[in-house]
Amino acid sequence: MKDTRLNVSHYKAPLDDMNFLLFDTLHANKIAECEAFEDATEDLFKAVMDEAAKFAEQVLLPVNAQGDREGCQYDPETYSVKTPDGYKDAYQHYMQGGWSGLSASPDFGGQGLPHLLKMIVDEMVCSTNLSFGMYPGLSHGAIDCLTEHGSEDLQSKYLPKLVSGEWTGTMCLTEPQCGTDLGLIGTKAIPNGDAYDITGTKIWITGGEQDLVDNIVHLVLAKLPDAPEGSRGISLFLVPKFLEDGTRNTAFCGGLEHKMGIKGSATCVMNFESAKGWLIGEPNKGLKCMFTMMNAARIMVGMQGLGLAETGYQVSRSFAKERLQSRSIAGAVKPDEKADPIIVHPDVRRMLLRQKAIIEGSRAMAYWTGLHLDLSHAHADADQRERSDDIVQLMTPIVKSFLTDEGFVSCDQALQSMGGAGFTQDWPVEQLLRDGRIARIYEGTNGIQALDLVGRKLTMKGGRLAHTYLSEIKQLLEGVSNSSHLASANSFIEILQETLGGLVIKAAKDPLEAASAATPLLRMFALTTVAVLWAKMAAQSEAEETVGSYSEAFLSSKRKTADHYFRLFQPEMTALAEEVKSGKETLMALTEEEF
Amino acid sequence: MKDTRLNVSHYKAPLDDMNFLLFDTLHANKIAECEAFEDATEDLFKAVMDEAAKFAEQVLLPVNAQGDREGCQYDPETYSVKTPDGYKDAYQHYMQGGWSGLSASPDFGGQGLPHLLKMIVDEMVCSTNLSFGMYPGLSHGAIDCLTEHGSEDLQSKYLPKLVSGEWTGTMCLTEPQCGTDLGLIGTKAIPNGDAYDITGTKIWITGGEQDLVDNIVHLVLAKLPDAPEGSRGISLFLVPKFLEDGTRNTAFCGGLEHKMGIKGSATCVMNFESAKGWLIGEPNKGLKCMFTMMNAARIMVGMQGLGLAETGYQVSRSFAKERLQSRSIAGAVKPDEKADPIIVHPDVRRMLLRQKAIIEGSRAMAYWTGLHLDLSHAHADADQRERSDDIVQLMTPIVKSFLTDEGFVSCDQALQSMGGAGFTQDWPVEQLLRDGRIARIYEGTNGIQALDLVGRKLTMKGGRLAHTYLSEIKQLLEGVSNSSHLASANSFIEILQETLGGLVIKAAKDPLEAASAATPLLRMFALTTVAVLWAKMAAQSEAEETVGSYSEAFLSSKRKTADHYFRLFQPEMTALAEEVKSGKETLMALTEEEF
Repeated sequence: MKDTRLNVSHYKAPLDDMNFLLFDTLHANKIAECEAFEDATEDLFKAVMDEAAKFAEQVLLPVNAQGDREGCQYDPETYSVKTPDGYKDAYQHYMQGGWSGLSASPDFGGQGLPHLLKMIVDEMVCSTNLSFGMYPGLSHGAIDCLTEHGSEDLQSKYLPKLVSGEWTGTMCLTEPQCGTDLGLIGTKAIPNGDAYDITGTKIWITGGEQDLVDNIVHLVLAKLPDAPEGSRGISLFLVPKFLEDGTRNTAFCGGLEHKMGIKGSATCVMNFESAKGWLIGEPNKGLKCMFTMMNAARIMVGMQGLGLAETGYQVSRSFAKERLQSRSIAGAVKPDEKADPIIVHPDVRRMLLRQKAIIEGSRAMAYWTGLHLDLSHAHADADQRERSDDIVQLMTPIVKSFLTDEGFVSCDQALQSMGGAGFTQDWPVEQLLRDGRIARIYEGTNGIQALDLVGRKLTMKGGRLAHTYLSEIKQLLEGVSNSSHLASANSFIEILQETLGGLVIKAAKDPLEAASAATPLLRMFALTTVAVLWAKMAAQSEAEETVGSYSEAFLSSKRKTADHYFRLFQPEMTALAEEVKSGKETLMALTEEEF
Repeated sequence: MKDTRLNVSHYKAPLDDMNFLLFDTLHANKIAECEAFEDATEDLFKAVMDEAAKFAEQVLLPVNAQGDREGCQYDPETYSVKTPDGYKDAYQHYMQGGWSGLSASPDFGGQGLPHLLKMIVDEMVCSTNLSFGMYPGLSHGAIDCLTEHGSEDLQSKYLPKLVSGEWTGTMCLTEPQCGTDLGLIGTKAIPNGDAYDITGTKIWITGGEQDLVDNIVHLVLAKLPDAPEGSRGISLFLVPKFLEDGTRNTAFCGGLEHKMGIKGSATCVMNFESAKGWLIGEPNKGLKCMFTMMNAARIMVGMQGLGLAETGYQVSRSFAKERLQSRSIAGAVKPDEKADPIIVHPDVRRMLLRQKAIIEGSRAMAYWTGLHLDLSHAHADADQRERSDDIVQLMTPIVKSFLTDEGFVSCDQALQSMGGAGFTQDWPVEQLLRDGRIARIYEGTNGIQALDLVGRKLTMKGGRLAHTYLSEIKQLLEGVSNSSHLASANSFIEILQETLGGLVIKAAKDPLEAASAATPLLRMFALTTVAVLWAKMAAQSEAEETVGSYSEAFLSSKRKTADHYFRLFQPEMTALAEEVKSGKETLMALTEEEF
């Protein structure tokens, strides 16, 4: 039973931390120097963020728990899906607030604002209702893909309504026999006049069917009759639920997955039965079309992990300040109360402080990457665009994996610090843990992200991405005068560089060595990036003047949390370096039978 | 949608591993040298284990998933609780199989078998149906408590039916305002003739109400009118649902908790409204009564973590051998298939092998502790009894925490290695993860276990427990001839000893230093114990003769898994030692406002 005497708040958008990062640490106002983003001033950022905070806190949060309990309902007679109570209203608010087209091209009715700003809004949405956020999230992927690869005809027919939010989009990739390995796709596309007949079954289709909007635009991977084998023979098609003349297309939902979490998000089996579709981009280049929007989509999944972790931290922190239990081992802190608040106990602090150090540090890493995502598209200087693109390419799998893995650990620590209360549905934390579990799997499992890092990103462009990365993070350290933080951050960089050097030599001889080291190496990149950004944030907290105005406690906590970050993760860096070095040997030693 | 083409088995009791541990590694047959356990020969162990395996696989497993979906139903009109379909039948099987009295005293109809054997049965029960296992699990605690502290009158009235399983028992400790801090208990006991009137509300009462049996025997912590303040003023009472004359006692279920997992287990709010109760043990010594059975109860919770992890491993291993996806990076392993089984990929092996190394190592640690639990009660030699008791006292919080924390991580890795499939309810793994989450919290959160280790166990008896422990684990290493394993295990021991030495000095000056180091220190004890036992198991796998007969793959996998264990956890030992050393500084630096 919920202890109703506790006055625990559930979520307030962490605007101070966001502003401190954007304008005091990362100088995100330089985005407005790009012609495409000249409107994206500090004032505009703040105005949008304030509105997003209200929307998330007042519209999305109130329907989150109920959506989890109720889930989505499938009607096999009409193939229709009912979303949880309150979702339709929330979606109307979302649409009317213009959130759908925030970063979409003005050519199709979008506001053309920076992707970084969209990421910040995404964080708030995911903090308050991840299941809801999945519907427009997938639409956004479809918008990006069509904007980049769709014909003028398809763009003019579909983009305006997708951008306005009147329609939504889906991504239809997975089939029962193929998830990671899309080369095994069996869905067929047979030419028929100016279009194609699409036939096959897709699974894991978020929002494949739902009652939020009138029409749903599916982007479907399928194979042409003459397609080459494997992943080089996959094409992308647009398959609307309703055709232009209002006819129902033969794309039907065949059922819903029953999942551990994100129960308010309809995860559909989609049956395409000679459904009418149109080619997007060139034949057999479907995977390439998908990959152009992969970076943004993967970073967005990282924001899900971060968003959930933020809410977990806020709830558990508030609980720890309110819940009275036992005395401090150093003597009563609140002698007038029956017991002390549990935040006095070192073990509770251990859990809270790890959350804080990871969340604020991860947010810095994500925003830094998001800033480069915008610069990579919009900066006037080609060299800067390429450098920024290097950072985005390299950091995408890192942001996706680290924020989702650590987001899960953070929610887990939030739950643990609340004891039995955390395990009940009276509190929102167990839902956060269940909802966040999927983020480590979809958009490429975190193991696949690590392989993307070592197998693709570290080898592309002759290995220049790591060089750009190292030079950029060293640049971030300029102006950090605290000698302890500087030394710590540099030691992270040194261990990373050394490990990287050793691995490159081994991996050149044996690709299994790289694959065996991928996960710990990705984590080393993440811990190093966050270390540098903690040194930077701590330094900014001591700046004589700040752009924003912050409480003394906010600023001093930055320095103390940085201290804790270094204390906690420096030993892990050494341990990870050992793990990378030990390579494939014990991993590959067992035969299949020996497992 | 479940991929029905996969032929994935869900659980077979790991009898080979259990036998190898018991009779080839730990020489558990020496238990039969104790007079009380003279019947507990190897043959008897094996016969009971075979029967338990059948019961778990054939009776408990089939009703596990359904129990999770259905949960328990509370009827507010009758205050009754309906358990999931199939539980009643399963309970009848449990009772008729004599499982209820396995380790209970023959004086009351029990079989008086070793506690170690009960732990093994518990593991199988928890592997196949944790929610179900909670009902008899709590009964067992009540039986132990009554056997140790009940008056002859109470024993004769209640023990026979508890031991036979005709009735069940509960433990009523927690109240809304007190979980960890039982000193805050508000439930009152007012003397009334030969009995007491008990009034108060208890929460988190497992099986407080259910439809499996005719009568429920509550053991309730409450305060006498003249009781001293705090935890020294708590007494223990027996409060039956039905009195001897058949009258309904005024102890009613007021509702059920809605939880993340163990949904088939009825977690009740219990309202005692001048319910009739009888004192157990002496007035104001209730906590002491509870604590005498705490070791067994906490070790049992550890077995829950282990049991769930075993099932997670079996399912994910089977999945990894069946699921075809992508090619090995070193070239096709199954060129005739469309893709290779995912067990060829290093990152999948990383997850599976971690599970295997932890599960088999943890099982060894638990059985080693269980063996000492029996020797501490039944060995003829008083000195051996005390040494064994030292081991049990020290290891109890370690077994409880490490097996539940690592059991959760193992299930998490099982889920992750299965990708999207793992997140759906078509597979049992997401339920294992949800069910196992509570084991890190109840019977004392894992943070409390760590404080028990550093605050109580390491300081009691003048600090002799750690000495006994070190001498015992060094003895285990005798006969280990593999120089690499021996050196590795010894290095774990050295790091632990050194860390312990440093902490004792700091903690003597400041108790916050001990409390700040508790969790990483506990983990160092666990990793060291498991390291020693892996060296031991690997050595036994190379013995010229074995007691049981094992496949070559089983024996060679022991050596290879030991190699992997050392590779993976040696660096972490060093990192943990650093964390312990860094102490309270950054943890205690933040003010409450700075969080």
